[in-house]
Amino acid sequence: MSAFVNRRDLDFLLYEMLEIDSLTAHPRYAQHDRTTFDALLDLAQNLAEKHYLPLAAKLDANEPKFRDGKVDIIPEARAAIQAYADAGMFACGLDEDAGGLQLPYIITALANGMFSGANISLANYSFLTAANANLISTFCSDDQKRRFLPAMLDGRCFGTMCLSEPQAGSSLSDITTQAVPRGDGRYDLSGSKMWISGGDHELSDNILHLVLAKIPGGAPGVKGISLFVVPRYRVNEDASLGDWNNVTLAGLNHKMGQRGTVNCLLNFGEGGACIGEIVGEPGKGLSYMFHMMNEARILVGHGAVVLGQAGYLHSLEYARERPQGRHPQNKDPLSAQVPILEHADVKRMLLAQKAWAEGGQALVAFAALLVDGQKVAKTEAERAELGLLLDLLTPIVKSWPSEYCLEANKYAIQVLGGYGYTRDYPVERYYRDNRLNHIHEGAYGIQGIDLLARKVRAKDGAAVDILLGRVQATIAQARSVPGLSREADDLEAAIAALRNTTQVVAACDDLNLGLANATLYLDAFGQVVVGWLWLWQATIAMRQPEGAEQGDGFYGGKLAACRYFFRYELPGAVQKFALVAALDDTCLAFRP
Amino acid sequence: MSAFVNRRDLDFLLYEMLEIDSLTAHPRYAQHDRTTFDALLDLAQNLAEKHYLPLAAKLDANEPKFRDGKVDIIPEARAAIQAYADAGMFACGLDEDAGGLQLPYIITALANGMFSGANISLANYSFLTAANANLISTFCSDDQKRRFLPAMLDGRCFGTMCLSEPQAGSSLSDITTQAVPRGDGRYDLSGSKMWISGGDHELSDNILHLVLAKIPGGAPGVKGISLFVVPRYRVNEDASLGDWNNVTLAGLNHKMGQRGTVNCLLNFGEGGACIGEIVGEPGKGLSYMFHMMNEARILVGHGAVVLGQAGYLHSLEYARERPQGRHPQNKDPLSAQVPILEHADVKRMLLAQKAWAEGGQALVAFAALLVDGQKVAKTEAERAELGLLLDLLTPIVKSWPSEYCLEANKYAIQVLGGYGYTRDYPVERYYRDNRLNHIHEGAYGIQGIDLLARKVRAKDGAAVDILLGRVQATIAQARSVPGLSREADDLEAAIAALRNTTQVVAACDDLNLGLANATLYLDAFGQVVVGWLWLWQATIAMRQPEGAEQGDGFYGGKLAACRYFFRYELPGAVQKFALVAALDDTCLAFRP
Repeated sequence: MSAFVNRRDLDFLLYEMLEIDSLTAHPRYAQHDRTTFDALLDLAQNLAEKHYLPLAAKLDANEPKFRDGKVDIIPEARAAIQAYADAGMFACGLDEDAGGLQLPYIITALANGMFSGANISLANYSFLTAANANLISTFCSDDQKRRFLPAMLDGRCFGTMCLSEPQAGSSLSDITTQAVPRGDGRYDLSGSKMWISGGDHELSDNILHLVLAKIPGGAPGVKGISLFVVPRYRVNEDASLGDWNNVTLAGLNHKMGQRGTVNCLLNFGEGGACIGEIVGEPGKGLSYMFHMMNEARILVGHGAVVLGQAGYLHSLEYARERPQGRHPQNKDPLSAQVPILEHADVKRMLLAQKAWAEGGQALVAFAALLVDGQKVAKTEAERAELGLLLDLLTPIVKSWPSEYCLEANKYAIQVLGGYGYTRDYPVERYYRDNRLNHIHEGAYGIQGIDLLARKVRAKDGAAVDILLGRVQATIAQARSVPGLSREADDLEAAIAALRNTTQVVAACDDLNLGLANATLYLDAFGQVVVGWLWLWQATIAMRQPEGAEQGDGFYGGKLAACRYFFRYELPGAVQKFALVAALDDTCLAFRP
Repeated sequence: MSAFVNRRDLDFLLYEMLEIDSLTAHPRYAQHDRTTFDALLDLAQNLAEKHYLPLAAKLDANEPKFRDGKVDIIPEARAAIQAYADAGMFACGLDEDAGGLQLPYIITALANGMFSGANISLANYSFLTAANANLISTFCSDDQKRRFLPAMLDGRCFGTMCLSEPQAGSSLSDITTQAVPRGDGRYDLSGSKMWISGGDHELSDNILHLVLAKIPGGAPGVKGISLFVVPRYRVNEDASLGDWNNVTLAGLNHKMGQRGTVNCLLNFGEGGACIGEIVGEPGKGLSYMFHMMNEARILVGHGAVVLGQAGYLHSLEYARERPQGRHPQNKDPLSAQVPILEHADVKRMLLAQKAWAEGGQALVAFAALLVDGQKVAKTEAERAELGLLLDLLTPIVKSWPSEYCLEANKYAIQVLGGYGYTRDYPVERYYRDNRLNHIHEGAYGIQGIDLLARKVRAKDGAAVDILLGRVQATIAQARSVPGLSREADDLEAAIAALRNTTQVVAACDDLNLGLANATLYLDAFGQVVVGWLWLWQATIAMRQPEGAEQGDGFYGGKLAACRYFFRYELPGAVQKFALVAALDDTCLAFRP
């Protein structure tokens, strides 16, 4: 079995649960079929295994350092990303007319997940670049695309997103970076940007920074924010590289995990002109950036999932091979020890990891398919519906795996015991790497407010209705097979709690009070969504003919994980909804 | 405010809640009073702040390395521990006739907690040594004490505990290290011991290993295990150091956290005679070791608590000083940003940390006082009762803080955002350090089985009766003050669930099934105990005269934390009890 991916599970998600074959009925994807989908997944798995996985521990132990005026990263890193580029991975998700393969997003997302599972520090460089290229391809002028895109698609130029500033992390309306018109249609950038992943390095010939800045005289707050392409080296008319553009590395951040991804403070225009080109129209920077951010949020959730999955697979293998102790009723010290897989508490930790990691994978895959679904929607109404659903789910896709797949990694360490706490095994690295995911691309608390204050209220709660309609359909399906009625009842009760809580908060006049427990609401909402996805999976498993991977097999495992989720996880969500619905002010009233 | 301890809270625990002044009424502690207690706490705080705290980040960044045949640790470490030794800290807990100050254990434990809060990697060396000295002082012969103890009490000789072996971590009955009689009353040791903290270094002139080994021909399993003192350098008759004793460093473990504490694999008797002396009688090794282990388990829980507390204090200070964003109802981007302390979700994360860290501190302090209580008990019955209660609570004291104070550190990182994820701030180190506590000195799952299979069943459940009698008394007290009746009701319901669950499991004939959810039982049991300690604290806070640190003051904070615990934490425990009482076999039946 692979160290970082369970292909059987991906096949199940794609072809048995989400039935993505149907995408190819649409002209947009007509040139593809399961063969080309699987070919990309195979390619990604092989590349990740060959080029990314072997560097993971070394890259972690040798984080980027500033030496002789440059950021020094282990030399194998550039070659590995080049292999990714040479295989066409940067371009595979783009449309054909943009030089891509026009593959569904769900396929490229799962393919890219292989690289994160193998080596997330290294994968970050290419994912930021791909997201960046995607934004340029969507919002930039043809001339800008001509000069910027080709180098990104073949890996010569990487991308970053520059939002935060040292004094403004989560509060973008308070950024102070300025963009002053030069009179030639371009702008002089000046200011500092913090937490820039991939901000400075020698892995690529150039770096394109997508920078949020304010044009003097613009509107206050977020409405005054515009977006600029700011290259590290200026890009000439013929797309060749020009002079250095005065983007200065002001300091490296030394992180707990994801150490191989250089992260830094950048100063723009400190010692000379730093020239940027505006993307689209002034004042719309944040909306363009959110196009990238929303994709980045799915990627963050997916990163958390694949780390959870990698930890699960590693601890499962360890538990199979490590003999230790005996069953509680066996008092004979001379009898053989059993593999720790036999101990109930180890099983619990493995089953929990499976429920979280595979549940998270289903969540991410479902969300990714919504991206594709909008592109192939037959009507505007269908497109709008899928868009609302994706908007609703985005904070959950970002946050739920960041919480529960981190917990999964905590369990992976526990299964390995002392060994899991050492750097000789990868699980402690997964745990350190995963801790970032609740922080970047919108912190946990921000996601909770996004869900409760905006997403569930949009269009009079239309998105919640759409989601719960789908959940109800699954509940009805579950009732049609034997053995899942208890889970169907539990999920029905949970969505009633969700609905009630949402209404109570919406009716609360005191915004501070209503939102005080938004993070708990987000958590509980995510548990309901993943519970739904587990019931969906269990319904499919229940319908298999007797003997088809039943019992100890693949479908038996799905049923066990579903049962675990409903008995051990979902009840907590109902309690959290009750607390939110009570408009409990314990935390809000606290004066530390 | 100190970076790692809240003295006001310790004063509250000692003098308002546990009323430890009463200890000094007993002849054993008659020479002490609050002045000497406070003096030791002041001394410890000052030493920890001056000598331990400044090295913490450096020791973490420069873990022990094997160089030129020796374990190389930053040189400041030895000087810092020497300052600890010079102040008499090694000896302060021992009886006067053993060269100590005969201070109550609760005081020395809290004093030592300061060192862990400041620098747990460094503190581990001295705590292992103190626990080791305590064992020698309790179980060794006068002649052994004469030769071994003085060097330990003045810091020239450190101690270790050698239990695990590479093939036997949690399963001690499977150890294979041998001790063969030499004919002179001493033994030749041979075998390997894994996970030995402080196993090899140059911080002290000598190291005494307490080694579990089997004498050939003894009983199988744990009954054949004896305990040996095995010095790194042999100790002559006059207590001077002799030849090297063939204890060989076979490898260093490179850990995620607690990096400054050298941890290694040791080989005994590999290249020549490795001579050990038996402690007490053959076959009783495990019971002697458990004397040390039980103390070590309180220390582990306490270590988790002080890391939780340090993270809380750090993130609280950060939240006070960091401006970011505005209240939800304020849409004016030109208004001033508020300190993040003002945001409801940040308050939640701070209040949760407070509830966990101070709740854990109360738990550890209560357990520590039981150690003292047994020494000053007026009757054998009282002594036995306190002993039973401490036995019952030991797995909880070890595990509950390891779970919830790790969670607290996760929140501390979250409050600091990106900064919290960098090594420029200590909170990510606390999180890495704290992750060890569920693993060493008996893993989480082992503690659950210890509680559910042994501790709650001992003497027909006498310990549970004793504990719940005390809980009921607190509930009655809480009902006598206004404003705590809801919490009193909730705790009453929770102990009913605890009782019922305990009975159901005891009546279950299938041992595997009954114990399948032992870890959940341990978790829920711990939540009830800490809920009790919070209700006790709240009852005291409620009785204060109006204005005495009420409202935003110290007592107001206690009431808020109690309310948080009862509304956000305790309900989950009742759910877990229900799951355990249902004898749910989801995990047990899982075949991965």
